[in-house]
Amino acid sequence: MMQNEEGKFHDQCAVFGVYGHPEAANLAYLGLYAMQHRGQESTGIVTSDRASHHAEIGMGLVADIFSKDKIELLRGDVAIGHNRYSTTGESLLKNAQPVAINYSLGALAVAHNGNLVNAAEARSRLEDLGSIFRSSIDTEVIVHLIAKSTAGNFISRTVDALMQVQGAYSLLLMTEDEMVAVRDPNGFRPLAMGKLDGATVFASETCAFDLIGAEYVRDVNPGEMVVVSPEGVRSFYPFPKRRPAHCIFEFIYFARPDSMVFGESVYGIRKAFGRELARENPVKADIVIPVPDSGVPAAMGYAEESGIPFEMGLIRNHYVGRTFIEPSQQIRHFGVKIKLNPIKKLIEGKRVVVVDDSIVRGTTSRKIINLIRQAGAREVHLRISSPPTTNPCYYGIDTPRQEELIAANKSVPEIQRYLGCESLTYLTNERMLKVFGDHGADFCTACFSGAYPVPLPGMDIQQPGLFESLSAAPR
Amino acid sequence: MMQNEEGKFHDQCAVFGVYGHPEAANLAYLGLYAMQHRGQESTGIVTSDRASHHAEIGMGLVADIFSKDKIELLRGDVAIGHNRYSTTGESLLKNAQPVAINYSLGALAVAHNGNLVNAAEARSRLEDLGSIFRSSIDTEVIVHLIAKSTAGNFISRTVDALMQVQGAYSLLLMTEDEMVAVRDPNGFRPLAMGKLDGATVFASETCAFDLIGAEYVRDVNPGEMVVVSPEGVRSFYPFPKRRPAHCIFEFIYFARPDSMVFGESVYGIRKAFGRELARENPVKADIVIPVPDSGVPAAMGYAEESGIPFEMGLIRNHYVGRTFIEPSQQIRHFGVKIKLNPIKKLIEGKRVVVVDDSIVRGTTSRKIINLIRQAGAREVHLRISSPPTTNPCYYGIDTPRQEELIAANKSVPEIQRYLGCESLTYLTNERMLKVFGDHGADFCTACFSGAYPVPLPGMDIQQPGLFESLSAAPR
Amino acid sequence: MMQNEEGKFHDQCAVFGVYGHPEAANLAYLGLYAMQHRGQESTGIVTSDRASHHAEIGMGLVADIFSKDKIELLRGDVAIGHNRYSTTGESLLKNAQPVAINYSLGALAVAHNGNLVNAAEARSRLEDLGSIFRSSIDTEVIVHLIAKSTAGNFISRTVDALMQVQGAYSLLLMTEDEMVAVRDPNGFRPLAMGKLDGATVFASETCAFDLIGAEYVRDVNPGEMVVVSPEGVRSFYPFPKRRPAHCIFEFIYFARPDSMVFGESVYGIRKAFGRELARENPVKADIVIPVPDSGVPAAMGYAEESGIPFEMGLIRNHYVGRTFIEPSQQIRHFGVKIKLNPIKKLIEGKRVVVVDDSIVRGTTSRKIINLIRQAGAREVHLRISSPPTTNPCYYGIDTPRQEELIAANKSVPEIQRYLGCESLTYLTNERMLKVFGDHGADFCTACFSGAYPVPLPGMDIQQPGLFESLSAAPR
Amino acid sequence: MMQNEEGKFHDQCAVFGVYGHPEAANLAYLGLYAMQHRGQESTGIVTSDRASHHAEIGMGLVADIFSKDKIELLRGDVAIGHNRYSTTGESLLKNAQPVAINYSLGALAVAHNGNLVNAAEARSRLEDLGSIFRSSIDTEVIVHLIAKSTAGNFISRTVDALMQVQGAYSLLLMTEDEMVAVRDPNGFRPLAMGKLDGATVFASETCAFDLIGAEYVRDVNPGEMVVVSPEGVRSFYPFPKRRPAHCIFEFIYFARPDSMVFGESVYGIRKAFGRELARENPVKADIVIPVPDSGVPAAMGYAEESGIPFEMGLIRNHYVGRTFIEPSQQIRHFGVKIKLNPIKKLIEGKRVVVVDDSIVRGTTSRKIINLIRQAGAREVHLRISSPPTTNPCYYGIDTPRQEELIAANKSVPEIQRYLGCESLTYLTNERMLKVFGDHGADFCTACFSGAYPVPLPGMDIQQPGLFESLSAAPR
Repeated sequence: MMQNEEGKFHDQCAVFGVYGHPEAANLAYLGLYAMQHRGQESTGIVTSDRASHHAEIGMGLVADIFSKDKIELLRGDVAIGHNRYSTTGESLLKNAQPVAINYSLGALAVAHNGNLVNAAEARSRLEDLGSIFRSSIDTEVIVHLIAKSTAGNFISRTVDALMQVQGAYSLLLMTEDEMVAVRDPNGFRPLAMGKLDGATVFASETCAFDLIGAEYVRDVNPGEMVVVSPEGVRSFYPFPKRRPAHCIFEFIYFARPDSMVFGESVYGIRKAFGRELARENPVKADIVIPVPDSGVPAAMGYAEESGIPFEMGLIRNHYVGRTFIEPSQQIRHFGVKIKLNPIKKLIEGKRVVVVDDSIVRGTTSRKIINLIRQAGAREVHLRISSPPTTNPCYYGIDTPRQEELIAANKSVPEIQRYLGCESLTYLTNERMLKVFGDHGADFCTACFSGAYPVPLPGMDIQQPGLFESLSAAPR
Repeated sequence: MMQNEEGKFHDQCAVFGVYGHPEAANLAYLGLYAMQHRGQESTGIVTSDRASHHAEIGMGLVADIFSKDKIELLRGDVAIGHNRYSTTGESLLKNAQPVAINYSLGALAVAHNGNLVNAAEARSRLEDLGSIFRSSIDTEVIVHLIAKSTAGNFISRTVDALMQVQGAYSLLLMTEDEMVAVRDPNGFRPLAMGKLDGATVFASETCAFDLIGAEYVRDVNPGEMVVVSPEGVRSFYPFPKRRPAHCIFEFIYFARPDSMVFGESVYGIRKAFGRELARENPVKADIVIPVPDSGVPAAMGYAEESGIPFEMGLIRNHYVGRTFIEPSQQIRHFGVKIKLNPIKKLIEGKRVVVVDDSIVRGTTSRKIINLIRQAGAREVHLRISSPPTTNPCYYGIDTPRQEELIAANKSVPEIQRYLGCESLTYLTNERMLKVFGDHGADFCTACFSGAYPVPLPGMDIQQPGLFESLSAAPR
Repeated sequence: MMQNEEGKFHDQCAVFGVYGHPEAANLAYLGLYAMQHRGQESTGIVTSDRASHHAEIGMGLVADIFSKDKIELLRGDVAIGHNRYSTTGESLLKNAQPVAINYSLGALAVAHNGNLVNAAEARSRLEDLGSIFRSSIDTEVIVHLIAKSTAGNFISRTVDALMQVQGAYSLLLMTEDEMVAVRDPNGFRPLAMGKLDGATVFASETCAFDLIGAEYVRDVNPGEMVVVSPEGVRSFYPFPKRRPAHCIFEFIYFARPDSMVFGESVYGIRKAFGRELARENPVKADIVIPVPDSGVPAAMGYAEESGIPFEMGLIRNHYVGRTFIEPSQQIRHFGVKIKLNPIKKLIEGKRVVVVDDSIVRGTTSRKIINLIRQAGAREVHLRISSPPTTNPCYYGIDTPRQEELIAANKSVPEIQRYLGCESLTYLTNERMLKVFGDHGADFCTACFSGAYPVPLPGMDIQQPGLFESLSAAPR
Repeated sequence: MMQNEEGKFHDQCAVFGVYGHPEAANLAYLGLYAMQHRGQESTGIVTSDRASHHAEIGMGLVADIFSKDKIELLRGDVAIGHNRYSTTGESLLKNAQPVAINYSLGALAVAHNGNLVNAAEARSRLEDLGSIFRSSIDTEVIVHLIAKSTAGNFISRTVDALMQVQGAYSLLLMTEDEMVAVRDPNGFRPLAMGKLDGATVFASETCAFDLIGAEYVRDVNPGEMVVVSPEGVRSFYPFPKRRPAHCIFEFIYFARPDSMVFGESVYGIRKAFGRELARENPVKADIVIPVPDSGVPAAMGYAEESGIPFEMGLIRNHYVGRTFIEPSQQIRHFGVKIKLNPIKKLIEGKRVVVVDDSIVRGTTSRKIINLIRQAGAREVHLRISSPPTTNPCYYGIDTPRQEELIAANKSVPEIQRYLGCESLTYLTNERMLKVFGDHGADFCTACFSGAYPVPLPGMDIQQPGLFESLSAAPR
């Protein structure tokens, strides 16, 4: 699946933190740069010089927002940073992160990856108590809860606040001289911890560590709160234990293939998905081609397992992503062509297996199949390296509403007809989870099953699969 | 090899033309967008509304220079466009193309891919006759020769002018209502011709046709002049015939893999190079990894031929290319890391074959090998899908001076030691050309052999191979 | 005195509001444009479409921040706007106004001209109650007090909030469908009310009304709260009455000469100051020249009264104010010359009376006198159309600290020697206030006398004049 | 008359040169900054480091185009610079100056103020000889004539070239190590020479010298060529002598009042025009108000002579000139109001004399009079400090075509009725020239009389006044 594609998923954020390094702002800049794929709409860094905070937050890409001058203004040896993707209509500067405020105990900055399911409720309660809100993001709720808490110090207040929220959060919080890294008890979203020259670093993905030359130590655990302060690094587990519910989509699509996520190599898992997919439903074909870039490893795995030659039959234009003028004329399949171009010589007269990571609305897949057919393919067999996406995510991924999810509204044969391919197969949930061995139960697969590990307020408890998943949770 | 890398080659340009289409400017914009990889420093479009020319030329990327408003100002159904890469110090707006001027017969715009070897001489002669120069590009010489010609009409003047220049040129010339597409008699640089809705289109690479939905008809032939005018399309061969000397580097590195160049599929040729490379010098190894993106097809060919598994062991950051702040701190191998990241899990403990397309100075290759070794590779075997680059190009590719070319100054064993790999093999000239069958002799391989098909003025005639190549022409 | 001069005063803001006009955003834009002189660092407009708020706030000039596209996004028939000047170090986007937030009763936007003396105290109290602060501006305190108030509706909450603050405020507050205009009981800063096509408009100065073609109706009175809502326009006086303390500096320097402020013509008052100044201390001279632009009317009044010819002997460069590169070389008096140039032909050999509105640090005045002397003046007599500035302002004007005020540290003869002029005279407080007839006592002249109408928390009650002024209030 | 007003005149340029100063680029920057009023559309500086030229040319204001970085790139101790105003449709970068080229003798840069009357002819002849043109400006003709000249050196070639052109030119030409300053034999446009720290400087107006602290030495004389080279400063008079024809409009409107132009103080002349105007046609009135800024000195002169009090009754918004969004609603007299605001208190019930420098189309004057009347004036008497403008200028001032000049198409009583004022008087040509004493005959007044000192090619010799003026020329 192509990044940034209309009608596909978007992860909401990347977070990065560094404590105790003279080049904190620069490292945050690089870390965010390496994680640009997790959010392209806004970016921000807040540093602390141990006395006060310095912030630089803007709409746009990391390399466009931060100039050398700005990095130099971000003084201090502690920093947190954030990249954000947001849904249409709310892509405003006031919603950009980190959230940076002052309250009774001093300065506080927060970077958040994930989504709270009870944010609206909590916000309404806070407003009734006189709180004012500047943004429409759920992260501001956490900040208010900390400010309102009557607990004695920042750490206790943070625990107090987080006890009141439900959902997904991988958070970095920074005061003048402390940093807290915390993951929700289900561990929905990733958060890795590393070391660099004696400094402690945190990042959503380990590719950020690779760029800055930091060593990946371990993940912050689900429900764990890691506190870094002048006294050193301490770890707490202040929340009731819940069953792990790691986001499976990090492996399917979001994370960079060179990252370690939830302790596994993204590239390796993707290839394994491809191999399983080949076993699932073999087909006679001449070549296997991926939809770049996220489909590449799965297609390689598929090719290896099936013995059908792997070819890079669709070439991606690397300059896409910038502003682009739509032609006034109706050029056929233009929206896809600007990103992908098939190699005719390779495809002509061939039976082609196309491997993609997922289908959301189906409109783009349909255009891609058409493109390949126009390039002369004799047969097109679409293979998807995940199960049918039937349910929206409430834990930090920007999915369309259920009405727009093609798999929620059509059967697989119907989808195949709509897309116009000779065959269509998805990877089953079982085969997908099998790849993880014993840890197969540690994932959230709500987008495939509707089994939401943390229910939304007012969500019908009878929803298929929901009760089961909750009861399954090994508290 | 990575695009835009310091110390590697750069093609100087892409040209695009369209005659007789109501959306000429928009098509030129898209065509240039598809060929952005051939030049990122300046871009320009000149259109003709049959009465006068309209120009928009700027420093930067296609998608940054052309706004919707600007495209709308580019009225008319005829257009030529140009992307340019230039060497340091001459990256000035005045050198951006197309060159657009007025002379006695009216308006003239010219877009040029290639390099004239006798430009300095011709310029000096023209200045003695009172010509003034605004730029430091050789294209301006052609324009002056046309203006000075005493021939009766634009076509004759163009022939007259081109008879006086030597070297490489794939040119598009536009008056108020004519377009001329012409290639030098050796056919150094590519130039393809296509059709769209009855309009005639020209482009350096066919990937431009794919994006706009045009059909690729054929190449403009070496020494051919195609004239498109209200009377239709005519073809001439006004120049003395010479032996073909197509730039082999288009296949090795420059062209997009989805393009047809000199009538061949770039992707297919690259894979074939990889297969030959595997035959050339087999090695026992666990995985084959490419240096993305240009090394990918060769690595796939190598893997297929050798039976060693192909893996995407180096992941490229797609946001690179934008302005970037260098960290003040010395991060190890930073310059390479910002673009490439090895997947440790994949490489650890393995014997790795690394496939790249060429080595210029050797500094980047050295860093890449070091990166792979740090990721835990047990052995690193570097395979280059072209012969050693020993000589600068004078026909339109921006190569460093001979002193900087590592293969001109070190033996292969010395290079291997410098790079720090267990083995190093280049593809031989013979095997490389064998891939093209009967057409193997139709290529310029001067950068490997020093056998320059068109000598520079004052070039020592005794230079190895030079005499031979001259006597060979014209067939 | 020149606008924007280093080391002189700066007013903190202009506010503008319009209720019930289909072109609300456009009128706000024009009103702020007309009041650009009151604040050049940030500008913002918030509109209400009766359901929700739309905001556009940025750092820079009105004409640079608002594009046509942005104005179109500011939907609705209600708008408030703000221009701001801020002191160094706090010139940040987060401090730009209007402040726009959400709280329990809905959306709220506030634009504030003035300065609260007990903001720090109030803020500290609010933080203890769990409020979080995003900015360092006192306006945010008002917003929090409204959000925290337990009163039943927005109007009562606003009264409740303002009862808790002291100091200077001319405020515009906007909810989804109400606008409140309110001035502090002393009426420190101006606020005018007008009419346009049935809509109600508010502005700091009437020049904003002139540009949009609105009719000036009257000032919002000190301590008055004007509420505009779907029910119409209502007026309240909810605060204890205090004696009027209008800022005299609006007449001396800040306001545009074409504005009516506190019911008087700024131009007329300035000319009257000049006439009084001529009576105060006559001198034999050949010409009277103003320091443009603010010194012009006073110089004209001086010339009329004294009979000495008025000449525009100093010419102002109208392009100043934009970014400017300082020459590396030391050009004499450069800082002043870039703004002002004397007409030598006019000044040579003359006895010159120079009229300026005030002296702050004295450094600029010294350069101007030197410039005039170098142009050949035989004698230079400086006349200042206000009393010596000896005390900082705490009510919304950005004055330097007392240590930097030359008149707080030197006697008039010492200042004259420092400036290098033949004579120096200030307008006395008595003569200045005489110009206003019966209303002479209605002004705050704390910057000349130290008699602060509203004491700062912890301010020494023995401070000369302070007790007196307090006992005088409320009338 | 307001600067930049629609439908009024525009001077085409300012030129600045410095030879032999280590801070040449910086001085050029400052000089152009001081002369920004002479051209706001493009600006450029070319420097010479004695070996080669360095250029920086852009569309926009001096302070916006030149950054510190750019100034630093402009190496060398010799520089010429240029500000340009251009007519609509030709406001393109390719027409910006200085013109910088290479030809047989090396590098050449030219900055030109004025207009050649035989440029089209010369261009056509040059194109026939094979010259190519990049721009549509007449300055390029001069450059081509120099390049084509067969004379032995640069100086002789320049004389050769200028012998072939007719019209108005104040030129600065720069080679690697020479600078030539030259004025056409009629001396249409100004050009002053000065000294700074041993360096020679040239500027259109002396206000440029004032800012950089240079001393004004004298004007370059009509027909004089001043050559500055390593050998020193030399002067030649290579052209046939013609009668002086200085542009009278420099005094009426263009030049800054603090400049010396043609050896006279602009401010002083303007005041004298005002005094003559008062004598010409006295009227009973209460106040005299200028149309700022250019009408101020004349209004002061008028007030002094008539004894009627001078008042600044129209206040100018100093932020005008930047981009501005027109309100979608029709605000009455908006176009004028955004620039000028009358002071009602001053004007109400008064008989007002309004002094402006000239009337072009009459549309703006009409709006201003209406504005003053709406402010409550009892009578409005318009006084123009120049004769009726009846003819376009061909010597470097951008005037509308004769059909648009109100005075070419209506009688004075008709104009008065159109404008809606109680009376209208122009200054007569005789009284205007009387101000200059013996030098009254040294001016070009073609815009008032149609007596063109240098006829256009093909201009009807019977044109009223033309023959007379030519015969009058004291060669």
